[in-house]
Amino acid sequence: MKKFIDADFLLENEYSRELYHNYAKDLPLIDFHCHLNPQQLAEDQKWDNIAQLWFGADSYKWRVMRGNGVDEYYCTGDAPDREKFQKFAETMPELLRSPMYHLTHMELSRFFGIDNVLLSGDTAEEVWKRTGEMLSDDMSARNILLKSKAEVVCTNDDPTSSLEFHNKVNESGFPVKVLPSFRPDAAFNIESENYTDYLEQLERITGLEIRSYDDLLNALKRRHDYFHSVGCRVSNYEIDTVWFKNAFYYEVEDTFKKAISSSEQIAADEVLAFKSAILLECAAMDHDKGWVRQLHIGAMRNTNKKMYKKVGADKGFDAIGESNYALSLSRHLNKLNTAGKLGKTIFYNSNPKDNAMMASILGDFQGSDFAGKLQLGGAWWGVMDNIDGIKRQLDSMSSMAVPGRFVGCASDARSFLSLSRHEYFRRALCNILGTEMKRGLLPADINLIGNLAKKISYENAKNYFAM
Amino acid sequence: MKKFIDADFLLENEYSRELYHNYAKDLPLIDFHCHLNPQQLAEDQKWDNIAQLWFGADSYKWRVMRGNGVDEYYCTGDAPDREKFQKFAETMPELLRSPMYHLTHMELSRFFGIDNVLLSGDTAEEVWKRTGEMLSDDMSARNILLKSKAEVVCTNDDPTSSLEFHNKVNESGFPVKVLPSFRPDAAFNIESENYTDYLEQLERITGLEIRSYDDLLNALKRRHDYFHSVGCRVSNYEIDTVWFKNAFYYEVEDTFKKAISSSEQIAADEVLAFKSAILLECAAMDHDKGWVRQLHIGAMRNTNKKMYKKVGADKGFDAIGESNYALSLSRHLNKLNTAGKLGKTIFYNSNPKDNAMMASILGDFQGSDFAGKLQLGGAWWGVMDNIDGIKRQLDSMSSMAVPGRFVGCASDARSFLSLSRHEYFRRALCNILGTEMKRGLLPADINLIGNLAKKISYENAKNYFAM
Amino acid sequence: MKKFIDADFLLENEYSRELYHNYAKDLPLIDFHCHLNPQQLAEDQKWDNIAQLWFGADSYKWRVMRGNGVDEYYCTGDAPDREKFQKFAETMPELLRSPMYHLTHMELSRFFGIDNVLLSGDTAEEVWKRTGEMLSDDMSARNILLKSKAEVVCTNDDPTSSLEFHNKVNESGFPVKVLPSFRPDAAFNIESENYTDYLEQLERITGLEIRSYDDLLNALKRRHDYFHSVGCRVSNYEIDTVWFKNAFYYEVEDTFKKAISSSEQIAADEVLAFKSAILLECAAMDHDKGWVRQLHIGAMRNTNKKMYKKVGADKGFDAIGESNYALSLSRHLNKLNTAGKLGKTIFYNSNPKDNAMMASILGDFQGSDFAGKLQLGGAWWGVMDNIDGIKRQLDSMSSMAVPGRFVGCASDARSFLSLSRHEYFRRALCNILGTEMKRGLLPADINLIGNLAKKISYENAKNYFAM
Repeated sequence: MKKFIDADFLLENEYSRELYHNYAKDLPLIDFHCHLNPQQLAEDQKWDNIAQLWFGADSYKWRVMRGNGVDEYYCTGDAPDREKFQKFAETMPELLRSPMYHLTHMELSRFFGIDNVLLSGDTAEEVWKRTGEMLSDDMSARNILLKSKAEVVCTNDDPTSSLEFHNKVNESGFPVKVLPSFRPDAAFNIESENYTDYLEQLERITGLEIRSYDDLLNALKRRHDYFHSVGCRVSNYEIDTVWFKNAFYYEVEDTFKKAISSSEQIAADEVLAFKSAILLECAAMDHDKGWVRQLHIGAMRNTNKKMYKKVGADKGFDAIGESNYALSLSRHLNKLNTAGKLGKTIFYNSNPKDNAMMASILGDFQGSDFAGKLQLGGAWWGVMDNIDGIKRQLDSMSSMAVPGRFVGCASDARSFLSLSRHEYFRRALCNILGTEMKRGLLPADINLIGNLAKKISYENAKNYFAM
Repeated sequence: MKKFIDADFLLENEYSRELYHNYAKDLPLIDFHCHLNPQQLAEDQKWDNIAQLWFGADSYKWRVMRGNGVDEYYCTGDAPDREKFQKFAETMPELLRSPMYHLTHMELSRFFGIDNVLLSGDTAEEVWKRTGEMLSDDMSARNILLKSKAEVVCTNDDPTSSLEFHNKVNESGFPVKVLPSFRPDAAFNIESENYTDYLEQLERITGLEIRSYDDLLNALKRRHDYFHSVGCRVSNYEIDTVWFKNAFYYEVEDTFKKAISSSEQIAADEVLAFKSAILLECAAMDHDKGWVRQLHIGAMRNTNKKMYKKVGADKGFDAIGESNYALSLSRHLNKLNTAGKLGKTIFYNSNPKDNAMMASILGDFQGSDFAGKLQLGGAWWGVMDNIDGIKRQLDSMSSMAVPGRFVGCASDARSFLSLSRHEYFRRALCNILGTEMKRGLLPADINLIGNLAKKISYENAKNYFAM
Repeated sequence: MKKFIDADFLLENEYSRELYHNYAKDLPLIDFHCHLNPQQLAEDQKWDNIAQLWFGADSYKWRVMRGNGVDEYYCTGDAPDREKFQKFAETMPELLRSPMYHLTHMELSRFFGIDNVLLSGDTAEEVWKRTGEMLSDDMSARNILLKSKAEVVCTNDDPTSSLEFHNKVNESGFPVKVLPSFRPDAAFNIESENYTDYLEQLERITGLEIRSYDDLLNALKRRHDYFHSVGCRVSNYEIDTVWFKNAFYYEVEDTFKKAISSSEQIAADEVLAFKSAILLECAAMDHDKGWVRQLHIGAMRNTNKKMYKKVGADKGFDAIGESNYALSLSRHLNKLNTAGKLGKTIFYNSNPKDNAMMASILGDFQGSDFAGKLQLGGAWWGVMDNIDGIKRQLDSMSSMAVPGRFVGCASDARSFLSLSRHEYFRRALCNILGTEMKRGLLPADINLIGNLAKKISYENAKNYFAM
């Protein structure tokens, strides 16, 4: 039987193979959105075994295990590492056709040289041993970044974060830039029970008193400045829909005061007006510093309350949401554009049905200040980051935007090995381009198309983020 | 010219052919959702001609005829059988690329051995004669089930149904299990003019007085028990969107009393709260008996009022509806899950744009009580049951769920010959799998993938339904 | 290197090539929806250079240039023609995979014989010169129509238009029929600041006083009659969603009077009721004259207010909108159907997610007065008119309607050369059909499928529009 993951995995014709091997493969990568732990990089973490490396924080793996009837004890629970790994291995043969099947075997091949074994309950012991040997040898957080040819990685960080670990890594002379992203979601959640606790943290780290909406903006601005000084050039906003509601400044101010005094209930439309306003304010800050803003739109979080109480947030109980935000997105952009505050922005939808709508709206607000200023984000998240999702995003983007300006893939990695998603994306991209050359949909000019592959794989991101 | 429907129809490469012929083809089938008439099985119905067999209750055929400008007289009207057949035959050449073109010719090939003729106005007479001979010979309702290798078929039955015909069939020693499904939609339609008439029927068959919401639940529970005793293990709920609204029990009780006393108008949000509540109660009954619940979400029924008045319901005047139910679906599931009442459930969306959203939400509520507990239903209904629809459902399911646990296809048959949809599904499935093996997206291990084909074609349903 | 645009562009197998070259290629075309300028046809316009021909009114080209960071000066601005062309040429290599890349090179090949050059900044001068020679030679508005084998073209015209240019063209003996379409959108915009100005124009051209809703309908009816006398057989309605709200006649009358007296604010639901009513009235007029009505549903117009103020409407600042209109569409159709006023209608969605929903709803309202009476419109607009969009529309239409009755492609052209979109559509169609023959999804009978290709390319439109 032919090896499953070989050098030409996903590359189905001569053009595709030439594009990947001669143009895309050897480029460094810029990972402008991931969830890697900077502390693990500061301390150059090593792992006892593959289970620790794989299951530490990767909710995608937990989800497929749960779908296969595996008890929570083996997911986020206290089961011994070897048993967790066994359950995952036993789930593998049920995952044929799943992107997880590809990614798992790619990671085994690329990082551990295991390309002659399909993971299953039967082969679990062999894989456990072989990976274990390499982990105890030279595999560490930093080595994985080096091996992945990472040039820059951007983590997700709350404004209250000290960024001490980022500083440590970068002061250590490690050649990969490990940069923070500014992610102020918690500052927006005015309706949260813990909102005032959060404000206290923000007061502590800034030394500012926060008694008004204006104070809040000042505090965020101070952290924004600090993040910039550490090298941050990217922000992230997780929003359940695109918030847009016009309100007078004094109304937003009133809402904020109600929230921190807790004497009154805040109505849903007051929350919306507040969030709408602060989202615009942060966008303006990003614009003024030339940062790239990333909007992640439409996920529905923590739907399973029983599990939320048991295991907390970010454990794989989120889903694709749905709302009609075409109008509010266009108004949000229009307001920033009119004010001269619309900067480079990447928009990620979480519901694939919205690809076309979103791509078309962005086309109304492009600008001559930067080619490809507004971007339809690459397929991301467990729900879209697969061969079909990559194809659909590239198709919507290509139909309605300017393919030669696309900044490509971010890993959204929750485990270090997931940096190999860049390889997955590049292979899928080169295969799509090569197949279209073969079909006559693209000119059969390998340099012309190879140049496009290089730009989307790396060069465009390099120019766009300017980190 | 190559035969259109030959042994390798839809199977485009060696792998696909091997998967279908050596793994999937000969398996029995479990048809867990159809609209076959149990009386016709009890009486082992025979048909005078192909028109009676094909046009008796098959709204899909009427729809394509209407789309081709055929008068209602030849659809649900009183035209002679031969003339109806002629109009259908004349419509056929206009249906190239339609799934109806495939299914019609597959049925002619499989059940009548007619595989050298394309149906058209010109060939109608020949087909009429050849099918007529076989129908007068050995073709009957039961023979069709046997010929189709059916193991179990589940019809759709109102709680007020006596199930006498199911009992007759099964007492007769017929080797195919003919089981009812519990489908209490009429009990939910509190806003219907005929609601109290329906309650009277329910009173009559249960011998219970229904004066309160509690009475209604008791009556349904009694029928649920009775259905169980007859072998029922499946329920069906047709819902125009996912109903979810929190209400106090006494409010639902008040709404119900208003409905049966008819003294007051019921508001839309009262109807919603009532339906939300009773849907949860029925789900709990299903859970407690270990049944599989099937939710059919989002169809818009009887849109053409002129035709509804003329020919009634279920005559092909339904369409894909649209509503944003991501949030209400997640709340419905959360409520059941928190209460420990979330059992095996299959979710069928009627709008293909919702495939991904729905698959992702289910992933938040899987459980260790059964592997693959919550299922994204196979492509169904006239609107999705075609090659592309099958592919899209398999893709969404494979990206976000556990393909190895998928229970596969139900026929939704309204005519006996439509059981051949299982063959259509298996061929499409095997072709997808084989093509992906060839492309290197799946390991080229025929036993591994053949095993997956068997599970999705039959074995998973066998385990899941446990009938 | 193989020529990019050769005789077999998009035709990937023997069947596809035979279908296109032997069945579809040489048919005339009926362009039932475009935005060509009738004055340019009356005067048989010639152009000084390719920039004037290409950039005069083509917002699609401006959009891709803006997406590539080109300043507005080179789009709708006052830059010299040669500089505009240079900027467009420089954008081209960034548009690989975009439909614009195909269409641009097809136009260069078909109209100018330039098929050995890929447009870029480097080749711009050569292309400028070669196109310039042909333009100064025999290229004129009328010649382009003749060269395109146009039989009929339908422009978009406000009811207040005198149609003088249509009359001039047709009186001149020009063999291509140049017909108006009735597009009364301005008469619906009761909430517009300029509404009374518009009514004054309507009064002027009809000689009628418009003091009531009834007067308005009379005035529109008079223009409808006039358009009919000039040969018009098609109407167009641009609607942001499907308006449907029941109201009494006197309420609509009141709303209209409020609008023209301006003494009171009109509420959103009054506007909706007015638009709902007048849309139905116009549909009835269309029905009574046997016209084909075209509904363009769901675009979001002029989202970028800054640019709208600067350059006005129809300059490429429109986008895909989103609204849940399944219910209102079915009600709109039901009301017309019940009243016996539902005539031939083509429905164009602007959001591709709605293809399936819309196709299924139309299937509820077909009628025996005309085969294929209600049509899912072909892929149109910058957002869908591409290879994938064409495939998706054909797939939805084929799954849920009657492919043999589909009327095919309209160009939506804003520049004369865009009539070549018909060639693009026919090639894509023939390739889809031929590929499915090869795969065994369609019978391998070239005459049978060739006949389908002819019907969709030309013959169905000929019968349907009867112009």
